[in-house]
Amino acid sequence: MKNSYPKKIYLNGDILDSESATISVFDRGFLFGDGIYEVMVQINGRFFYKEAHLKRLEENLRKIKIDFDTRNLSAEISKILKGSDLVDKDCLLYMHVTRGVAPRQHAFPTSITPTFMMYAIPKILPDINLIKASVITSEDFRWTRCDIKMISLLGNVIANEDAMQAGCFENIFIRNGVVTEASHCNVFFVKDDIVYTHPADRFILDGITRQLVLELCAQLGIEVREKGVSEKAMIDMDEAFLTGTTTQIASIRQIDDHFYYQGDAIGKITKRLQEAYLKLKNDYCGN
Amino acid sequence: MKNSYPKKIYLNGDILDSESATISVFDRGFLFGDGIYEVMVQINGRFFYKEAHLKRLEENLRKIKIDFDTRNLSAEISKILKGSDLVDKDCLLYMHVTRGVAPRQHAFPTSITPTFMMYAIPKILPDINLIKASVITSEDFRWTRCDIKMISLLGNVIANEDAMQAGCFENIFIRNGVVTEASHCNVFFVKDDIVYTHPADRFILDGITRQLVLELCAQLGIEVREKGVSEKAMIDMDEAFLTGTTTQIASIRQIDDHFYYQGDAIGKITKRLQEAYLKLKNDYCGN
Repeated sequence: MKNSYPKKIYLNGDILDSESATISVFDRGFLFGDGIYEVMVQINGRFFYKEAHLKRLEENLRKIKIDFDTRNLSAEISKILKGSDLVDKDCLLYMHVTRGVAPRQHAFPTSITPTFMMYAIPKILPDINLIKASVITSEDFRWTRCDIKMISLLGNVIANEDAMQAGCFENIFIRNGVVTEASHCNVFFVKDDIVYTHPADRFILDGITRQLVLELCAQLGIEVREKGVSEKAMIDMDEAFLTGTTTQIASIRQIDDHFYYQGDAIGKITKRLQEAYLKLKNDYCGN
Repeated sequence: MKNSYPKKIYLNGDILDSESATISVFDRGFLFGDGIYEVMVQINGRFFYKEAHLKRLEENLRKIKIDFDTRNLSAEISKILKGSDLVDKDCLLYMHVTRGVAPRQHAFPTSITPTFMMYAIPKILPDINLIKASVITSEDFRWTRCDIKMISLLGNVIANEDAMQAGCFENIFIRNGVVTEASHCNVFFVKDDIVYTHPADRFILDGITRQLVLELCAQLGIEVREKGVSEKAMIDMDEAFLTGTTTQIASIRQIDDHFYYQGDAIGKITKRLQEAYLKLKNDYCGN
């Protein structure tokens, strides 16, 4: 599937054609990867957990001391949806805030205005993600502040490329023998009806979908242990799945040479969570 | 000292005013920090170890699979020097290559043209860097491919900002109890006339100045051990210094609360290397 450019781009208050949406080569996003991003999806005319996404954006900006007010974003989001002919339509909204434009020096410039770019593209998520994913694993060679949703993503980009080259859906990181997360998803395992996932510390991004899955487990009476699973224990698990804003809940069939199941036999806890997640979406966004 | 913008920018073959030098918001440099940079200085009309810098640029591009031909850069460099009125003048040349422009997706797009930006600014290096630097230390929280001179620099930027906030010249990283490098310099120590520096593995950038200092040690009969110095051993060292393309060789007087010396008493090996480095510059570039 060939990706295409969005119809319109929101850039610092203006709605522009994709070709006209340009930034200075001195934008610190371009020079240093000095910025934060956020992604959310609109379903049936309502952004799914919009407040949680905007709160995370704000928290991440604060972590790297970018002074940007996220309180009045709703009006700006409406502008780009309107410009993109996506008002009330199912779409993905990408938001990108950098520290702004200044002559190149590592330290943070004073009195700088952040750059704010966003765009919306049509995106119809399946009710349930039916993929039976194959994934590879690799050493988690990224920094140790993976809790920050930053745009300095070369590590994630390389890992994702390796997955694509292997014909796989994702690349799962292993740090000091323990599974952390994937290049742009969180990772869960199931063993004896207990759900395992890495705790939300400095080594993973605390995905909104991850948080929702944990809530669903609580509602369904499924026991959860926020505990890293070792590389060794990984292949003894009964089930494995990925979560993410557009991935939703994706079953993992194969990890490296190991198969969790054959054919379409998605694990029962994964299936239960997928159905509960669909219900959550329908309750939240209507259907 | 307030930094200012360069007079002219080289961007994909064109010479532009700083204000007109813009790139697409879909440049992967802006979206992902997906690129490589390089810095070198011209002294008395000759770039200091130009071939080494260009070779490193090429090697780094190859490491992240950016297909960009560095063989014909000399003509392009001449163009930007001419445009900047810096032909034969002392200056710093900054070069920046990204994977190019494509709709946002992590994996590498096929048939993409790299973005190549560079600029030159006047820069007169002192014969010898006379700074008596104070530095702080912090946990090396960056990724484990610090050998790649990438533009996904948020970690380095945060560390440098912390140094500036502390009124210090640099921030020295410590990984698993061992000194690696600083936010944009390499680090050396001296003990009993033996020079110590971290080996050029995945945990440091193998600076051109670092390499030159090692060569100078060999020429001067100074013993070198490419071996990480522990945080504990660090304060028992006789001398400490930083190296970098514009930093040259900078003595460290104070690291956190520990003083290597008081006043202007720069260590004797540091001084000897500074003088040998000056001679190397003069031999290479004339004086």
